Amino acid sequence: MKLNTMKDLYIGQLKDLYSAEEQLTEALPKMAQAATSTALQKAFRDHLDETQSHKRRLEQIFSNLGVSPHGETCQAMEGLIKEGEDIINAQADSAVKDAALIASAQRVEHYEMAGYGTVRTFANELGENDAKDLLQATLDEEGSANKKLTSLAEGGMFSVGINDKAISS
Amino acid sequence: MKLNTMKDLYIGQLKDLYSAEEQLTEALPKMAQAATSTALQKAFRDHLDETQSHKRRLEQIFSNLGVSPHGETCQAMEGLIKEGEDIINAQADSAVKDAALIASAQRVEHYEMAGYGTVRTFANELGENDAKDLLQATLDEEGSANKKLTSLAEGGMFSVGINDKAISS
Repeated sequence: MKLNTMKDLYIGQLKDLYSAEEQLTEALPKMAQAATSTALQKAFRDHLDETQSHKRRLEQIFSNLGVSPHGETCQAMEGLIKEGEDIINAQADSAVKDAALIASAQRVEHYEMAGYGTVRTFANELGENDAKDLLQATLDEEGSANKKLTSLAEGGMFSVGINDKAISS
Repeated sequence: MKLNTMKDLYIGQLKDLYSAEEQLTEALPKMAQAATSTALQKAFRDHLDETQSHKRRLEQIFSNLGVSPHGETCQAMEGLIKEGEDIINAQADSAVKDAALIASAQRVEHYEMAGYGTVRTFANELGENDAKDLLQATLDEEGSANKKLTSLAEGGMFSVGINDKAISS
């Protein structure tokens, strides 16, 4: 890895996120299939659509930079997905497995929020304004996806949360 | 992995965090040594002290549960730390390396915020009130550590941010 300039770091971080989104595109359908709650299945499928749009936004940024999006493997996302696979394969009560899948997915969302927060700031500081706007849009969607998972876990005035179902199951 | 009850999941998540804190205790001194900014070195050293206190809080919770803290390896933290090591070993401008170390550390903080947010909620829902308070205290410190890193990267009214130093170096 060469980090001679801030632009080297910016591009490296974008490649890390591209690899993370590619890995997540493969993982989300498995998480949807492992979920029992139909609301959670839908949340994972909706986030798969968003993830594909996040990949396309990154491809647009790479195209404007004249750089290939490939060449990095996001090792943190590899670890996050391995943890998700352990849950998918666990001997589990179905509501407890749903709660565990949410815990795993929220770690993924937080990883992406950290990553997109960083590159959005770098884009801003480097004067890459179109990229900044694209990255901010993705950052906002990752934040919303995380909040959606919290509300599924904890429930609300009109719905029982998955955690409560898991505790009483 | 067995996830028959919500308590199984709660204990599994606590063990994952204990492994994450143990790994971080080894990684933070290396990150402090690789940093050039004295403020960043201090932030890593201060967070090492906090990390040791987070480990002790988890040990107290395990002791109350009558369960060993060992037996899980946090694979996500393994990946996060490998990414940090790649930065430590990179051929880099010193200010750019500092910016990269912050990016890496903020991913770690977000991982921990997700993890502690989840177990704090589980503790609350399971009526484990002493544990809930301990986990909330750690969650607050992880959030503060993350904000401290943002302010070091972006600077403020009276200080030049590490990112600006990296852009102009």
